[in-house]
Amino acid sequence: MMAVPSPRTPLVAMVGGGQLARMTHQAAIALGQTLRVLANTGDEPAAQVSPDVVIGSHTDLEDLRRVAAGAAALTFDHEHVPTELLNKLVAEGVNVAPPPQALMHAQDKLLMRQKLMALDAPVPRWLGIETVEGLGELEAFARQTGGALVVKAARGGYDGRGVTMARDLAHAGQVAAQYLADGVPVLVEERVGLRRELSALVARSPFGQGAAWPVVETVQRDGICVQVIAPAPDLTQDAAADAAQLALRLAGELGVVGVLAVELFETTDGTLLVNELAMRPHNSGHWTMDGSRTSQFEQHLRAVLDYPLGDTDAIVPVTVMANVLGAAQPPSMSVDERLHHLFARMPDAKVHLYGKAEWPGRKVGHVNFLGTGGTGLAELRNRAELAAHWLSHAQWTDGWDPHG
Amino acid sequence: MMAVPSPRTPLVAMVGGGQLARMTHQAAIALGQTLRVLANTGDEPAAQVSPDVVIGSHTDLEDLRRVAAGAAALTFDHEHVPTELLNKLVAEGVNVAPPPQALMHAQDKLLMRQKLMALDAPVPRWLGIETVEGLGELEAFARQTGGALVVKAARGGYDGRGVTMARDLAHAGQVAAQYLADGVPVLVEERVGLRRELSALVARSPFGQGAAWPVVETVQRDGICVQVIAPAPDLTQDAAADAAQLALRLAGELGVVGVLAVELFETTDGTLLVNELAMRPHNSGHWTMDGSRTSQFEQHLRAVLDYPLGDTDAIVPVTVMANVLGAAQPPSMSVDERLHHLFARMPDAKVHLYGKAEWPGRKVGHVNFLGTGGTGLAELRNRAELAAHWLSHAQWTDGWDPHG
Repeated sequence: MMAVPSPRTPLVAMVGGGQLARMTHQAAIALGQTLRVLANTGDEPAAQVSPDVVIGSHTDLEDLRRVAAGAAALTFDHEHVPTELLNKLVAEGVNVAPPPQALMHAQDKLLMRQKLMALDAPVPRWLGIETVEGLGELEAFARQTGGALVVKAARGGYDGRGVTMARDLAHAGQVAAQYLADGVPVLVEERVGLRRELSALVARSPFGQGAAWPVVETVQRDGICVQVIAPAPDLTQDAAADAAQLALRLAGELGVVGVLAVELFETTDGTLLVNELAMRPHNSGHWTMDGSRTSQFEQHLRAVLDYPLGDTDAIVPVTVMANVLGAAQPPSMSVDERLHHLFARMPDAKVHLYGKAEWPGRKVGHVNFLGTGGTGLAELRNRAELAAHWLSHAQWTDGWDPHG
Repeated sequence: MMAVPSPRTPLVAMVGGGQLARMTHQAAIALGQTLRVLANTGDEPAAQVSPDVVIGSHTDLEDLRRVAAGAAALTFDHEHVPTELLNKLVAEGVNVAPPPQALMHAQDKLLMRQKLMALDAPVPRWLGIETVEGLGELEAFARQTGGALVVKAARGGYDGRGVTMARDLAHAGQVAAQYLADGVPVLVEERVGLRRELSALVARSPFGQGAAWPVVETVQRDGICVQVIAPAPDLTQDAAADAAQLALRLAGELGVVGVLAVELFETTDGTLLVNELAMRPHNSGHWTMDGSRTSQFEQHLRAVLDYPLGDTDAIVPVTVMANVLGAAQPPSMSVDERLHHLFARMPDAKVHLYGKAEWPGRKVGHVNFLGTGGTGLAELRNRAELAAHWLSHAQWTDGWDPHG
């Protein structure tokens, strides 16, 4: 009997059952596979839609072993797996992608800052505080930088949690002391004068191939990304190339495998500073699902499988992504009915829902709008904002009334 | 306690676990849901990737009831569910979409032809043979039409099966007699002089909204679609509008819910004749996954859920889809390795694999290529053909050798 090759491509396992895993599963289907996910419960976004779910904890070695068993690569929906567990998995022969020695720079903000300095990457001025004694350095740092301070938990934060804009030195000290009391080291930074925030998204394969998407602008509100404009408007070609080059260089120097998001500050004088690193598909890349030749989710799979990377060109001149954030008071109108009304008003809205219960401020989906750019951008941004707000609030903020 | 709306949108159930269901599941994920499928085995394309699988038969009423239970709509990956079972489900309150009185026109080619004539839609000249006695009419029909004949099984055919290009009258009679002996009525048609084949793809919602994608050219080989060019090159605007209007009209007259594909012959004198109808996502619409604002799979879900339909515009000037057809001798190189090489040569190929075992001629995937059209079309078609052949044969038909 002739040996028949398996019709399935290699299995990728992902730690975490959130929306990033959910959307990675969509991409895995096209590549001839299903994504295996490690989820806390069967109701998490990815666990709802994939047949290959391991229920367990990302801090339990046995659970990690179970999800990794037989997978060509083990990758991540979030950064919260302890490094020591990942090192054990690597020692047991698991292909962890990105490898722990790369991932640790996205897990620990102090390590990240040290490494970025060593690599001569531009960063805001910062102070690491790992012990209560270290709090004593805060006053000198504040005097030296002369401005307002940002206090960050070095580990465990996400979506604006773990980041505090200090009112004054005393407030900064209180917040830092609280983190330390919880056993979390602290990163204090100068609050730089911002023109806006950008994100340079790239992918890197173990072979060493790198691919960069167009650099985007990320619009934040209360520390949460609310909108992404791809490409970033009015960014000079030189600045865009510099940002993409920086991200590709960091991906190489850190040994990243998969998608790397380099969140950047564009300061009022046009300087680019690195704010954060994420080594996984990233909110600033959700626009690629509809606006780029290759989505970040497919690219992440290609990278961790060491496939050649896909074309990262934008398909249209501009794509706007808006996050759907849970309302303070979720409306009684069903999501179904909201979707119905949205589609009636905007037949070109590209909707991505995560199947998540609606909590105030929680990311429960996003919408993409494709456009021709130029003078139409303001209108496109407005429509994306209207659509996203409608989906979570069942209110048109422009007062639109189809029956009016 | 406040009532919290479900974060999931209504469940759609699909009869059949093939690639159409697989790709519909991808679209269902974005709309906040998972697709429930009725599959014969857990290894079918959609059953591999959806967590909500009912194993059973599409000819078993109990299995159909199980998959329909709690679903907002029951729809189809194929046309093979007996009408009497669907009528029972409708009587029990199941929302069958398309409804059986529409679907029967895609299930029975004689019924289809009769209805198309009644609706004044252009069709090739045809003869229905339902009994052995009816075979006596064949000679007169052949004399009247004067040309070669095509003999089709009126029920149960797909992908070129059940269609015979008769060598002569005697051959036509033999094939027809064989179908009749198997209990299958026969449709005999004149073989019209073809310039090419086209497909007009539309969707219709219960509300009555219709939406048409650009009319495409479908390139056939041995009765199987091998390539689709969207939009159809050099089709006059009037002819394209006529074809789209015809398809929208048929969708309305037949009461279709969901996607309707109207396969068309463009004769040597430019006349358009209806060849076949399919009431489900269709091979001629696979290009929409990457080339249109709204994919046929999302649109089908929107239609059966009675959502307003999505924008059907093409995103780029031309999209070429090529089917990946199993080789006569499947290569020993793994699908994984083939994919690797394809991506190395063509970073812009959009690959969709179905997870199917490779049998000769079987559709196991497709590739989409996006282009700017014009003089680049021939090259784009060539690349699509090369890519599809490579994926099933592990051979570059242009002799390309990366190590050469």
